Amino acid sequence: MSEPPAVLADRAVLALCLEVTATPKPGNVDRHRDHEDLTLADMLSGAHGAAPGLRAAAAGEDVGTAFERAVTGMAAGAGQNTHLGALLLLVPLVRAAADELSPTSVQDVVDSTATADATAFYRAFDHVDVAVPEPPEGAVDVRRGSDAVSELEKETLQEVLARAADRDDVAREWVEGFERSFEAAERIDRADGELSDRIATAYLALLAERPDSLVRTRHGDETAEEVRSRAAALGQSGGVQDDRAAVADFADELVSRGINPGTTADLTAAGVFIALETEVISQ
Amino acid sequence: MSEPPAVLADRAVLALCLEVTATPKPGNVDRHRDHEDLTLADMLSGAHGAAPGLRAAAAGEDVGTAFERAVTGMAAGAGQNTHLGALLLLVPLVRAAADELSPTSVQDVVDSTATADATAFYRAFDHVDVAVPEPPEGAVDVRRGSDAVSELEKETLQEVLARAADRDDVAREWVEGFERSFEAAERIDRADGELSDRIATAYLALLAERPDSLVRTRHGDETAEEVRSRAAALGQSGGVQDDRAAVADFADELVSRGINPGTTADLTAAGVFIALETEVISQ
Repeated sequence: MSEPPAVLADRAVLALCLEVTATPKPGNVDRHRDHEDLTLADMLSGAHGAAPGLRAAAAGEDVGTAFERAVTGMAAGAGQNTHLGALLLLVPLVRAAADELSPTSVQDVVDSTATADATAFYRAFDHVDVAVPEPPEGAVDVRRGSDAVSELEKETLQEVLARAADRDDVAREWVEGFERSFEAAERIDRADGELSDRIATAYLALLAERPDSLVRTRHGDETAEEVRSRAAALGQSGGVQDDRAAVADFADELVSRGINPGTTADLTAAGVFIALETEVISQ
Repeated sequence: MSEPPAVLADRAVLALCLEVTATPKPGNVDRHRDHEDLTLADMLSGAHGAAPGLRAAAAGEDVGTAFERAVTGMAAGAGQNTHLGALLLLVPLVRAAADELSPTSVQDVVDSTATADATAFYRAFDHVDVAVPEPPEGAVDVRRGSDAVSELEKETLQEVLARAADRDDVAREWVEGFERSFEAAERIDRADGELSDRIATAYLALLAERPDSLVRTRHGDETAEEVRSRAAALGQSGGVQDDRAAVADFADELVSRGINPGTTADLTAAGVFIALETEVISQ
């Protein structure tokens, strides 16, 4: 460990700030767009509220405890959920980065979670109102928060998330070695333009790749696939660099329809952290 | 001290993020405006780079040392000067807030600075290229950085800044009990609208109150007075809430003319921190 743990947390919070300000990011809060009940200032406040939990992760705290603390601080800072999914990626990434960040090291971190991490994860949901899919038959319903804890048997947090991996692309990262998060960092590396443009380009590519989990949960498979295919078409016809106006129009449309691809933003934020940490981009 | 020092630093960094994103803020980087060589992403990176120095201040480190560390981190994060003036306000404010923040407690902090703080202050200028006024005859030229240190005799940092107080409104805060910083917090408290609008309203009022020091240094007294009087007229004719388009036009004009009232932004950021710390606004 060559730098103090707190600096890793600073970098994770900066990643959240760079992600949220990057524009145009169709459907999400960005530099030029607020949601009706969620402003850029709320997002910045939530990100900084999460800092103590991220510092705990950097200092080697258990993933579940650090996540619960990050979510509690986020909710206190913003008065609502701004970054729960992003924190479920960033907490293990920051923990892994305390030694050296790689797909293997972060997979080791999530493979090492225990039942206590799962318990803390469920408790975190006491602090926020979150849109998550209906649980499959027989599974514990995360929406019940700590009320669900007594139903937990001996599942680790990774096992809990593995059961959600087919319907939630944040959970899927936990079983796929954070594949798309690392891909997002590579996309930022390869993209042209100012940093903000490069982040927006990575976001559009992620959105084009798979239907966004949060859009599926809130609006159904058909809408999620529509958003995905239109993002793919925009990427092919020029994207953020060569047809910015078309991407910006799509961004305005999704915001006005209340369609928020939040999972894609979570993956993008994780990618920005990885890009900062591996010096793909300079801080 | 009821919360960990690091949380005070989180709040100071959040203050910098809320200040820079507030819009319209004539002449400064804001949510909708970059400067040619200074983007919103640079400002966010500089703010988070300063975090270790702000944590040192919160933990009771000497003001000069904490300031030097904050400036070094800021310059490493952004690759240029983004927040030197704001940090010269925030470092003593954060230090004072570790006990209880008030005009008296922050005045006590700056009154207690020593020669070593002045030495560290000069060293900080080794890290950045900053526009400061010509020093008066016989005074040490801060632009020479640590080369100037050997010329220092027994002046404290407060004495150094007191000599600049007539031409630099950040330095003036050090001898006037941070009067305008606390006034900025009160203006944010009194203003209407979303948080971003309230911050922009406070900024416009500060800009209308006194000619901006950085504009005086770079463009002369006449331009600084022109900017001040036009800000005053805009404030009287509606301001950010009731004639937003006129304020936004003025913002575009100042950016295109390369006129940057950076001192006013510094004072605004200090006001946002005070407003967060004293719960005038919630984090």
